[in-house]
Amino acid sequence: MPIIVQKFGGTSVADAHRVHLAARRAVRAKLAGKQVVLVVSAMGDTTDRLVELAGQVSRRPAKRELDVLVSTGEQVSIALMAMAIHEAGYEAVSVTGAQIGLLTDGVHTEARIRSIDTARIRKMLDRGKIVIVAGFQGVDDNLNITTLGRGGSDTTAVALAAALRAEMCEIYTDVDGVYTADPRRVPTARRIEAISYEEMLELAGLGAQVMHPRSIEIGKKYEVKIHVRSSFTDTPGTLIMNEVPGMEEVAVSGATLKPDVGRITFIGLPNRPGIAAEIFGQIADRRVMVDDIIQNVTHQGQMVSVSFTVDGKDVGAAQAVAESLAQHFTNVAVEFDFQLSRLSIVGLGMRAHSGVAAKMFKALADQNINIENVSTSEIAISVLVRRDDGERALNAVHQAFELDKST
Amino acid sequence: MPIIVQKFGGTSVADAHRVHLAARRAVRAKLAGKQVVLVVSAMGDTTDRLVELAGQVSRRPAKRELDVLVSTGEQVSIALMAMAIHEAGYEAVSVTGAQIGLLTDGVHTEARIRSIDTARIRKMLDRGKIVIVAGFQGVDDNLNITTLGRGGSDTTAVALAAALRAEMCEIYTDVDGVYTADPRRVPTARRIEAISYEEMLELAGLGAQVMHPRSIEIGKKYEVKIHVRSSFTDTPGTLIMNEVPGMEEVAVSGATLKPDVGRITFIGLPNRPGIAAEIFGQIADRRVMVDDIIQNVTHQGQMVSVSFTVDGKDVGAAQAVAESLAQHFTNVAVEFDFQLSRLSIVGLGMRAHSGVAAKMFKALADQNINIENVSTSEIAISVLVRRDDGERALNAVHQAFELDKST
Repeated sequence: MPIIVQKFGGTSVADAHRVHLAARRAVRAKLAGKQVVLVVSAMGDTTDRLVELAGQVSRRPAKRELDVLVSTGEQVSIALMAMAIHEAGYEAVSVTGAQIGLLTDGVHTEARIRSIDTARIRKMLDRGKIVIVAGFQGVDDNLNITTLGRGGSDTTAVALAAALRAEMCEIYTDVDGVYTADPRRVPTARRIEAISYEEMLELAGLGAQVMHPRSIEIGKKYEVKIHVRSSFTDTPGTLIMNEVPGMEEVAVSGATLKPDVGRITFIGLPNRPGIAAEIFGQIADRRVMVDDIIQNVTHQGQMVSVSFTVDGKDVGAAQAVAESLAQHFTNVAVEFDFQLSRLSIVGLGMRAHSGVAAKMFKALADQNINIENVSTSEIAISVLVRRDDGERALNAVHQAFELDKST
Repeated sequence: MPIIVQKFGGTSVADAHRVHLAARRAVRAKLAGKQVVLVVSAMGDTTDRLVELAGQVSRRPAKRELDVLVSTGEQVSIALMAMAIHEAGYEAVSVTGAQIGLLTDGVHTEARIRSIDTARIRKMLDRGKIVIVAGFQGVDDNLNITTLGRGGSDTTAVALAAALRAEMCEIYTDVDGVYTADPRRVPTARRIEAISYEEMLELAGLGAQVMHPRSIEIGKKYEVKIHVRSSFTDTPGTLIMNEVPGMEEVAVSGATLKPDVGRITFIGLPNRPGIAAEIFGQIADRRVMVDDIIQNVTHQGQMVSVSFTVDGKDVGAAQAVAESLAQHFTNVAVEFDFQLSRLSIVGLGMRAHSGVAAKMFKALADQNINIENVSTSEIAISVLVRRDDGERALNAVHQAFELDKST
């Protein structure tokens, strides 16, 4: 019998009523002849409340104990979900990460899955039960509770789908799929019916927040078909899957905007081997997350200028590190610009279509929007623009590539 | 190094401040040269709130899932307690019932402890850590989470103290010990310094609510010294321990009142073998908890009258059962009296002192209080009185045996 994994996020199990709605979906899949595994997150803002509680007790709570604390959130959800399915008249059983032997490394609050023992789940499925698994959590070799960090429940769901060779992993969430752009910024944005893992990875990395890149990577590695859809409607969402013939016919699949980006530039660095390694080594040591790096030669090759960008929330830390770094060199200036946005377009078709970058630049030029920096990957092009121009730039590019039109 | 087990109930860990107070006690015991194991309950009304949440999802939640749900309450507490001890600058580690291999039978919501694997706890203690154990919970042979039912955290604490051969099990609670009578009813009631397991069992069974009889039974079986004391003061509480020389010098150690007791009497039953078995078998089948049973012969041995008493909250169910039972017999009447209280006195010294019952009856007679029924055990005497007379009777007996005077 084919197995289906359904994952319900925090908003999809926020109260008793929604738990019942989710339970009903599971029962429907069961009645359609599937073996059903549910993965659930903590209810609504439970995790935030638990972290706040920890903050009342300790300024810097130990990560091991934070994991013991916050993992209770998912445990509450699995019990309630099992009760809701029983109430609907079907058999269900809840299991924690420890109970299904979801083994992780020992990195508390950011653990990685090592293996899943599917024997127990398969046995329960074969007895006709709907199995409800606590997302986000596992145990290390010594039975210490670990959590998987951001996107943890998605990761649990996709990893389980891989381990069980499920025919589908459905991710139920509060949006009804992946859009060509954020509908709050682009009124004409359109839901994408199917998208490749590669494109979805780029979109997620560039600001689309539907799924965490980590779970998509696992999906890609094990070829798990992922269906991102709304828990409040029955309309199909977006399929994330292997590239299929025809996908490349579209040059651009989607556009993203990171509205709040800061750029830091070192000017007058000596052009010698190891200079970039030195700078970014020190930045990494101080745990500042760097987005893009742009290096250019100046003064007839004598010197280089090096820029890097950081997320808006990190500009304070980045500035402090950069200023202290600049003092290690003589005659090196450091410049800051914290009023930028990053606009990106993503599409498998870029590999086959020429002129995609030129078309993007023209769309921005037509709107009199200046481009500050450009960076590219195989299937994405990103530009930095003034923050005030961000949304206008996004809409211009969305229209230029006709993303509002169905394919 | 001697081991001490400290148990903190729900009111003793109700908020961050109280968690810190409890943590400080653990640290003090550690500084006094002990290896310290803490057992903690769920914070404040957490368990009630979780049960209410279950009620929102299901009218009759499955007991297995209730256990998964409510066991999260203690898991939250152990994590916060570990954080509080870290904050005080000491090493601590939290463990769930599953993590220490606290094995129980599979009776969900009312499981019994089968064994505790102390190896892991001892290893952590030997590394200098304060070990914090989730009370009330364990796992069965298949790793299903089970809870121990009423008095569960006390039971965990005393069982752990037994398994670890601890020199003391301290039960921190919101009262400062065991009293000669409930201080809310008897203003002159006095804290008892030391009491035997047997007396404490009788007192608990007869209405004193400081500790559940179950944990005292385990304490008695394994000779665990139990110290019941306040989590809000430093004054010593009550020691529950083996009988020591001198304990019998006092005839009566304490008095209890169950204010709300109902009595049901069958009149005119045939006096033949098996009649009591038949009646109480059917009552047990309908899950009515019977307290006392009194049977007397009437009509020159032709007939018997049988009374039994039930807790006030069960009179409705008991009445229904009794009325349907009476219809099985011809000419059997059933009478109800739901306006009674049960007054009891308990003391090891009864075994050695004569005239204890007579003294109790005289104290009541002097107050013009009628005695409706009498029942006795080796170390307790109980009488039923009109409910209106209950508190007056309790005070009269308390004074007659000079329970207010220190020994």
